[in-house]
Amino acid sequence: MKGKKSHPPTWKSKLHEVIYEADTPAGRFFDIALLVVIVLSIVLVMLESINMLSLKYYWEFYIAEWIITIIFTIEYILRLIAINKKRKYIFSFYGIVDLLSTLPTYIAFAIGGHNLLFAVRALRLLRVFRILKITRYIGESNKLVNALKHSRPKILVFLFAVFIICIIMGTLMHLIEGERGGFDNIPLSIYWCIVTLTTVGFGDIAPVTPLGRMIASIIMITGYGIIAVPTGIVSAEYTRRSQDSVPTNTQVCPHCNETKHIDNAEFCHNCGKKLNIDD
Amino acid sequence: MKGKKSHPPTWKSKLHEVIYEADTPAGRFFDIALLVVIVLSIVLVMLESINMLSLKYYWEFYIAEWIITIIFTIEYILRLIAINKKRKYIFSFYGIVDLLSTLPTYIAFAIGGHNLLFAVRALRLLRVFRILKITRYIGESNKLVNALKHSRPKILVFLFAVFIICIIMGTLMHLIEGERGGFDNIPLSIYWCIVTLTTVGFGDIAPVTPLGRMIASIIMITGYGIIAVPTGIVSAEYTRRSQDSVPTNTQVCPHCNETKHIDNAEFCHNCGKKLNIDD
Amino acid sequence: MKGKKSHPPTWKSKLHEVIYEADTPAGRFFDIALLVVIVLSIVLVMLESINMLSLKYYWEFYIAEWIITIIFTIEYILRLIAINKKRKYIFSFYGIVDLLSTLPTYIAFAIGGHNLLFAVRALRLLRVFRILKITRYIGESNKLVNALKHSRPKILVFLFAVFIICIIMGTLMHLIEGERGGFDNIPLSIYWCIVTLTTVGFGDIAPVTPLGRMIASIIMITGYGIIAVPTGIVSAEYTRRSQDSVPTNTQVCPHCNETKHIDNAEFCHNCGKKLNIDD
Amino acid sequence: MKGKKSHPPTWKSKLHEVIYEADTPAGRFFDIALLVVIVLSIVLVMLESINMLSLKYYWEFYIAEWIITIIFTIEYILRLIAINKKRKYIFSFYGIVDLLSTLPTYIAFAIGGHNLLFAVRALRLLRVFRILKITRYIGESNKLVNALKHSRPKILVFLFAVFIICIIMGTLMHLIEGERGGFDNIPLSIYWCIVTLTTVGFGDIAPVTPLGRMIASIIMITGYGIIAVPTGIVSAEYTRRSQDSVPTNTQVCPHCNETKHIDNAEFCHNCGKKLNIDD
Repeated sequence: MKGKKSHPPTWKSKLHEVIYEADTPAGRFFDIALLVVIVLSIVLVMLESINMLSLKYYWEFYIAEWIITIIFTIEYILRLIAINKKRKYIFSFYGIVDLLSTLPTYIAFAIGGHNLLFAVRALRLLRVFRILKITRYIGESNKLVNALKHSRPKILVFLFAVFIICIIMGTLMHLIEGERGGFDNIPLSIYWCIVTLTTVGFGDIAPVTPLGRMIASIIMITGYGIIAVPTGIVSAEYTRRSQDSVPTNTQVCPHCNETKHIDNAEFCHNCGKKLNIDD
Repeated sequence: MKGKKSHPPTWKSKLHEVIYEADTPAGRFFDIALLVVIVLSIVLVMLESINMLSLKYYWEFYIAEWIITIIFTIEYILRLIAINKKRKYIFSFYGIVDLLSTLPTYIAFAIGGHNLLFAVRALRLLRVFRILKITRYIGESNKLVNALKHSRPKILVFLFAVFIICIIMGTLMHLIEGERGGFDNIPLSIYWCIVTLTTVGFGDIAPVTPLGRMIASIIMITGYGIIAVPTGIVSAEYTRRSQDSVPTNTQVCPHCNETKHIDNAEFCHNCGKKLNIDD
Repeated sequence: MKGKKSHPPTWKSKLHEVIYEADTPAGRFFDIALLVVIVLSIVLVMLESINMLSLKYYWEFYIAEWIITIIFTIEYILRLIAINKKRKYIFSFYGIVDLLSTLPTYIAFAIGGHNLLFAVRALRLLRVFRILKITRYIGESNKLVNALKHSRPKILVFLFAVFIICIIMGTLMHLIEGERGGFDNIPLSIYWCIVTLTTVGFGDIAPVTPLGRMIASIIMITGYGIIAVPTGIVSAEYTRRSQDSVPTNTQVCPHCNETKHIDNAEFCHNCGKKLNIDD
Repeated sequence: MKGKKSHPPTWKSKLHEVIYEADTPAGRFFDIALLVVIVLSIVLVMLESINMLSLKYYWEFYIAEWIITIIFTIEYILRLIAINKKRKYIFSFYGIVDLLSTLPTYIAFAIGGHNLLFAVRALRLLRVFRILKITRYIGESNKLVNALKHSRPKILVFLFAVFIICIIMGTLMHLIEGERGGFDNIPLSIYWCIVTLTTVGFGDIAPVTPLGRMIASIIMITGYGIIAVPTGIVSAEYTRRSQDSVPTNTQVCPHCNETKHIDNAEFCHNCGKKLNIDD
């Protein structure tokens, strides 16, 4: 249904369809091709961050860098041409990210501050969010995102409570442990407390006094106990949502208007007549 | 309804409304302003605990300290004036905390024991609980707190069982590992056991004998398996609460105003009269 | 109701009631007194395991040890007298634990091998299970234990699957990492795999090769994902159990035989007559 | 029903029944005996990987190795004889694993490269999957596997989102921490991020800058919060499954033998005839 427009498809509207929509074969191909380039550009940034590799394959990285930059530049220009509200796109989140994905290489070429611009180039990672558009196809993610959205305020309240517990317990640990074990100052103790309460437990900082270890035990058991809270929230939300989704479809019997038939039913379970007449 | 009082609002009752209540604009403003000062005072205590900063910005901290102390002092006096049952407030939890938030600075000024009073000053953190009053506005937290309250006895039983497992396993590990790997004494081994069962795993103490590692594996898998228990409890509690699956409706008995009747009830369970008169 | 017996209560049956039952004031007092002594004896064993303390307070520990041993001996003799099936008690789990709680001190006194018998004395810890009898009073724990009992087979299947994953992944890690990072042999690698999959993560062993770290990432994400399984099982079991517990009682209306009335209902919601006639 | 065959049972079909089926006493005995040998062979590979043991008990390992290899060889030949579609078995997953379980010992005997073939011999571990056939008997695992199967797409979407978070946060940590604390390159930082988000926390890499610790705190709290998501998914799926809330009954259509009809269905949804003839 979507995509049907009354005016004849000009090359511009066609370009728009290819770049911004995903329900035509060309649009889907464009999306996937772009995705591949984005992933490649991310892999490139990752590999370049490995010192050993960046020294050995300096020129290979340099050339790959330019190829990706040029592809992104062309894509940026095409996006600008295809869209009507150009200003809105330029100053949108993706507009800025798209621009920042291309600029660093040019600036580095003009001025030379390669190292400095590396950080900016890492912004390309944000383009990965475009991949998330793909997840729409999976269909499952919608329910998930919905359940999360509805759980968000409750989870935020919970995380806020967790944070307050960490502040209080962190200060307590700083007072008890002092500078033994690494609890040098309150922010550091709070950091340790978050590490412990979330059951991560790096071990770079660890209590050494008996009293400190007792408090630590309480924090750990608390963390172990209250991890139940967000889980309970999401579970309840998700259960409510998915219990509606009985394995029936919304097909309506053309004879008796009975709804909710089993997914692959051929006859209405109410009146016994065929469901799909034109088969 | 609340806030409507028959006697004309004197300046004292008005002050009470501003300080102790939160449903007037002035009251809400007071709460938020106080919250900001409390958060600032906490940030101050945190930053002051960092040695490097406290040496560099000694005077800045000193002045900020006095400003906050004076604000808290004024607040304390206003609270005393506004309330009728003064003695009850002074000896209440918040009354003592409010007093302890101001005293240390004065005592440090009079006597000089700055370091010693630092610990007392950290008590200001307890004022953060006043922030929790704010969470009432969010509304979501009520259901959460209710679910937690009803889960508490069950979770306590569970944590008690966890603690007994830790005592037994801790002793066992001490007997097996001896002083290799750091299992020097039973309390320490119990501490390690809590660290392991809650899946925190600092790594400052770790088994080194094959048998010790086998027992550790069992503890870990147990911890991984039973984390399900508190989650199950809270989930079930929360699901019940949010599904409104209590089989009652909100019908009000026209005779005795009793609410919450079973869904297909025809007579009030409180006064025995018919629920729906016009039937 | 319980405890009413037709024959007159002899001193022996009375003793039995005090020691083995808990529904009379005397029985409950005995249980709690015993519990206190058990906890004290456990604390004693714990503190004695701390080298520093055991050297400093040698005589205090020695005397306390004897007092507790004598109390336990008296208790053991009383238990023997009060019960009819003496042989069954002696060879029961608790009978053996009770005997082993007293013997070591006597043997150490006769022979002198204090250190050797410390391990046996630690068996006293098993008496802590008697504490669990107390949890019966809490009432909440029954539902919990039931939910766990019904989830047990499923959780065992799950843990079995987890163990197989650990064996396979552990072997893989040994082959990849070799002896770098500490993956010296397959059992050790399996131990590491359990530590990682259960999200404990001590850090005493950690992968150092890129490929090893990739496999480790997969193990961690798997562990993070499948922790959902036992939780889901217990949640579902517990939800089912607690959803039956609608706030109704099993009272039957004496007039119309309608069951399931709201807990404090006075009139039947079906026929409108009084529920409790003799009130 | 199963096992009833019209043709008289030849020795070959009997062999097939013993080896490939498990519903006769002989078949079950074969399965369990094989399971024991597989477990023994795995334990052998494990113990042999411990250097100390493999040197001390060289000949014992050598003989045990040969016994197991011969048993596996006989089993492989029997399997080949018993089955009709021999080619299909040889090139099936288990066929290859079964062959690879025997070959290394022969090759090591012929050529001598003992160490090199150790890795191949570890493939025997894959035979452990045959154990999983046993879990079918437990019966509980079916529901479990079903709930997991239906949760898989959602959990994959979730894990994909987790992975993207790790990429972004890992890069951020590399930019912030640089080479202090061990964040040498982006892939390593991503590895650390996975370690942290999944609450494993080895501690071999840990942030040391204040800003890095702040980001780490956010990652940890995120990980702690979103662990709720897969749990919620599996819980909901499992609750739905175990509550039997699927609105179908086990009625079988008398005309077409279609099972699973909606609870109040009167006509078969497959053939359209009346379900209950005698109504």
